[in-house]
Amino acid sequence: MKLHGYFRSSASYRVRIALNLKGLRVEHLPHHIPRGEQREPGYLAVNPQGLIPALQDDSGEILTQSLAIIEWLDETHREPPLLPKDPLRRARVRAFALAIACDIHPVQNTKVLVRLRQLGLKEEQVTDWARWTIREGFAACEKLVAGEPGPFCFGAAPTIADLCLVPQLANARRFGVDVQAFPRLLQAEAAAKAMPAFADAAPDRQPDAE
Amino acid sequence: MKLHGYFRSSASYRVRIALNLKGLRVEHLPHHIPRGEQREPGYLAVNPQGLIPALQDDSGEILTQSLAIIEWLDETHREPPLLPKDPLRRARVRAFALAIACDIHPVQNTKVLVRLRQLGLKEEQVTDWARWTIREGFAACEKLVAGEPGPFCFGAAPTIADLCLVPQLANARRFGVDVQAFPRLLQAEAAAKAMPAFADAAPDRQPDAE
Repeated sequence: MKLHGYFRSSASYRVRIALNLKGLRVEHLPHHIPRGEQREPGYLAVNPQGLIPALQDDSGEILTQSLAIIEWLDETHREPPLLPKDPLRRARVRAFALAIACDIHPVQNTKVLVRLRQLGLKEEQVTDWARWTIREGFAACEKLVAGEPGPFCFGAAPTIADLCLVPQLANARRFGVDVQAFPRLLQAEAAAKAMPAFADAAPDRQPDAE
Repeated sequence: MKLHGYFRSSASYRVRIALNLKGLRVEHLPHHIPRGEQREPGYLAVNPQGLIPALQDDSGEILTQSLAIIEWLDETHREPPLLPKDPLRRARVRAFALAIACDIHPVQNTKVLVRLRQLGLKEEQVTDWARWTIREGFAACEKLVAGEPGPFCFGAAPTIADLCLVPQLANARRFGVDVQAFPRLLQAEAAAKAMPAFADAAPDRQPDAE
């Protein structure tokens, strides 16, 4: 399989963790987002959305959208499972993942920040936008797992929730958000980062890291 | 079951369609978003994210995030299925749904537009922001289903993709986007709207419609 990604992209980071947890080796095909390489015709033929990641399976089929890719990996490679078995527990885990993947990440990603700058906002206002988005989102996430047993977001093993959390915490620090306000999220991150599957997926461990 | 929602919220609209398709009757508990009722303490106790929809099941358990709710409904009420059986097809359907739920809707929702106004942008710039987001997203969505058999997004029956598409098309028209540029999406919408499950879920058919 081949993974079209970018070392710093948190959506790519989620998929890298999933692949590592499933013990799958892939060829990494980096696309430099700040230089706009994801909008080149060659890549738009792979993913018309012009977004990374995209996963190409061994028969050449292309999958897009990190959460759809991860659910597919989980359905086609069952061990270790990335979702609980109980439907209600699955819904809780997915809701946490979506609270990051829908309500935090797209509102603070590069594309949106570029548009804010184009509208004449100052760099300080753009950074504040990203920080506010992450802080507000994490405050809700902290409550969503407050009553859950640790050390991971939802119990003793990592789930899709942790796959979304760890990359979003990396973004948070990059924007200077004070993450100490979210102790339960940090507990989950610490448990995750102790696993090679998470550690090896970190941005600074990728071949295209700058 | 009880559904916390708002007639015009497209995330609530998605869940209303799913409930109708599954033949489930629920009590509707409207929260007026423009008046900020979703941020009142009583509702924050239901959903700490302060977002609608939230579904309360018969045992009092609360589910949040529209796509997590819909996947739960699909896992606990199997007929009619809202996802294909084949993993690769499921991934395609989910990717389309996420292209709307992650990349269009959160970037043009009320919360973001309010923040843009607070930063001093003019009403015209705010509307342009929403239109641009929807147009760019729909252009990709149109390509994602270009090779798919109709009349729905992915074949002869509605899936989660159509549940996301129909409400987003309603938003598009509200912002004055020229939707004629997306004939394949309109074909799917026409097929969907011919079904009572979709028609009855429309914003103007809800008890809190204004």
